[in-house]
Amino acid sequence: MAQQHLDPTDPTAGAVPGDALAGYLRAQATEFLRALRLHRETGGDAGVPARTRARPGDNGSEESVDAARALRRSARRISASLHTFRPLLDTDWSEAIRPELAWLSGTLAMEHAYAARLERLLLALHRLSGATVLPTQPGAVGAPGGAEVPQKTEPADAAPPTHPAATPERGNLTVGAAKAGALLERQLTLARTRAHSSALQAIGSSRFHAVADNIAVLASEVPLTPAAATADLRPLAASAEERLTDAVTALPLVTAGSPYNAEALIHGLSPDPAPHPQDAPWHQVRLLLRLHRYALEVLHGGTGPVDVRLLASGQALNRHRDASEAAAAAAQAARTPRIAPATAYALGVLHADQRHEVEAARFAFQQSWQMQTVGTP
Amino acid sequence: MAQQHLDPTDPTAGAVPGDALAGYLRAQATEFLRALRLHRETGGDAGVPARTRARPGDNGSEESVDAARALRRSARRISASLHTFRPLLDTDWSEAIRPELAWLSGTLAMEHAYAARLERLLLALHRLSGATVLPTQPGAVGAPGGAEVPQKTEPADAAPPTHPAATPERGNLTVGAAKAGALLERQLTLARTRAHSSALQAIGSSRFHAVADNIAVLASEVPLTPAAATADLRPLAASAEERLTDAVTALPLVTAGSPYNAEALIHGLSPDPAPHPQDAPWHQVRLLLRLHRYALEVLHGGTGPVDVRLLASGQALNRHRDASEAAAAAAQAARTPRIAPATAYALGVLHADQRHEVEAARFAFQQSWQMQTVGTP
Repeated sequence: MAQQHLDPTDPTAGAVPGDALAGYLRAQATEFLRALRLHRETGGDAGVPARTRARPGDNGSEESVDAARALRRSARRISASLHTFRPLLDTDWSEAIRPELAWLSGTLAMEHAYAARLERLLLALHRLSGATVLPTQPGAVGAPGGAEVPQKTEPADAAPPTHPAATPERGNLTVGAAKAGALLERQLTLARTRAHSSALQAIGSSRFHAVADNIAVLASEVPLTPAAATADLRPLAASAEERLTDAVTALPLVTAGSPYNAEALIHGLSPDPAPHPQDAPWHQVRLLLRLHRYALEVLHGGTGPVDVRLLASGQALNRHRDASEAAAAAAQAARTPRIAPATAYALGVLHADQRHEVEAARFAFQQSWQMQTVGTP
Repeated sequence: MAQQHLDPTDPTAGAVPGDALAGYLRAQATEFLRALRLHRETGGDAGVPARTRARPGDNGSEESVDAARALRRSARRISASLHTFRPLLDTDWSEAIRPELAWLSGTLAMEHAYAARLERLLLALHRLSGATVLPTQPGAVGAPGGAEVPQKTEPADAAPPTHPAATPERGNLTVGAAKAGALLERQLTLARTRAHSSALQAIGSSRFHAVADNIAVLASEVPLTPAAATADLRPLAASAEERLTDAVTALPLVTAGSPYNAEALIHGLSPDPAPHPQDAPWHQVRLLLRLHRYALEVLHGGTGPVDVRLLASGQALNRHRDASEAAAAAAQAARTPRIAPATAYALGVLHADQRHEVEAARFAFQQSWQMQTVGTP
């Protein structure tokens, strides 16, 4: 398939003026404010366990999750655009607001991340036990933690953390797998609840109000430099793409492209409990790919066709990140004092399984990325 | 690459007379007797731990391992030929001797199998700990348990079961990995020692002497039926190939050919400790592939060129079997009472790693088998 969107490196296409950036930032700022209003109206109680909520079945939590996701979505895009096109923006202003947006995105993301991680690990435990996959969470395996996918496709996120759907299946699990599941549920639900409190605190803080005020200004007036009016956005977008391709070139793609290279588990029993250093370059590419995608959105005013190959590469890297963190959570849980050997054994199998997911995600990225570079004219 | 050997289904090629079978059986019987003499001369003490041997460094053990391997090698070929070409042989005689040969091969194989399994698991533990692979056992990962590879290429088999080479690396292992290694070493060395005693007992038994007498007769006079002199061996060899291709067709090759299908670990935490039922069809194909290979040897009088694709497929299935049994051994060790959680965790990672080796071996088989069927005219 040929590239449908404007190629930022193509000198024959028309220049994209600074107005496009201003329009994009205004639209994202408006979206941010809309999501913020929705989040306040729905109360933001998504992380509170069902048993402590007044009406466990109401839609408030789902809408609140959607609102938080929309908040993060626009915050990421604003922050990325300020970074990619920083020569065209008031430096003091953009330097001041970017760390604040990063803090906000990060704080809001944690709750969802813990919920998705628990979901992923419990599903893996069931899969590894030969049990049927829980029918109520169809999307959770394919695109867990997928903040990039269209909204409303992941009702699993709204499920309360007590997971009543999982209970009837427990009969199929060994004692070890069931205990491992219960341990992970305890630890990750606690982390999720804490993240929820942090998010609520953050949204009520004066620091957050300052960010919201800044974004409200951005929605009406973008602080462009005088030169921005006549500048062309494409060279800056091309630089973002170049940083991405440079980082991808540095990845061990040949290894990743040969299946079952057993590379991801190579430190599976390493005494060092820190995250795998081998994952870092992949996480970095994930961020650069996102910057590139958002830069393309700016160029096309958000109306360009979806580049399926870029999307597939990004999803593979999301899966890579999710599996990497899930594997670390399983390893971490195995360090809990006084657990039974059967529990530890199940966590070991689970850790290795998720590290193989990491390897599989790298393979998937290599496949979709190769497709992309071959297809680009 | 085109097939170099005679195609047993090609009607234009010349018929292969029953004499070829008689010649092949005589040659294998002679080889069996030679290996038996060598085994008796070297004392067959390969399985005795080094510390209990008079001269730990002498070559007796290595020669004895080679002799046992040669014994099994010819016993397998004789047994397979009796099976494939049974209409051309005296029925009573071949029906009587085949179970005896199977008993002999099986008994002699166990000691080597336990040694290779321990080797494989200890190497995997080191690999999973990010430690360098032991330099003294270069062939052990690539072709473990490879009774099919040319002799003298696997000095690792001669290493005493105390594995002094592994000791300096232990510093790199976590406590869990080191304890898991020690546990596996204890259990598999015990099993190996028992297998060694059984093999020694078997070779000294009157049952074995009866087999040896039968093979001695075979070395001079093959009990062919009167019809065998004018019969063509090719249709019987073609039937063996057909049984193989039928069994391969029934394998889930499409799944196996898509990398990271996560199929092999699907019962990784199943409460049932029995061997994975999903492995059985692959083990069956491994045996049928061997029958097909030996039938080709009969047709070509042992002088045909090596079919590298058939060899690669067979090696993938050997690896499949070895990894499957190693995974079961790790799971079994994790059921040892009163082990530490860290040990159980390491065994869980190890089990999952070996199950992924199973999946990787299926992928490798699918790749080499596809190559073969495409290449066949």
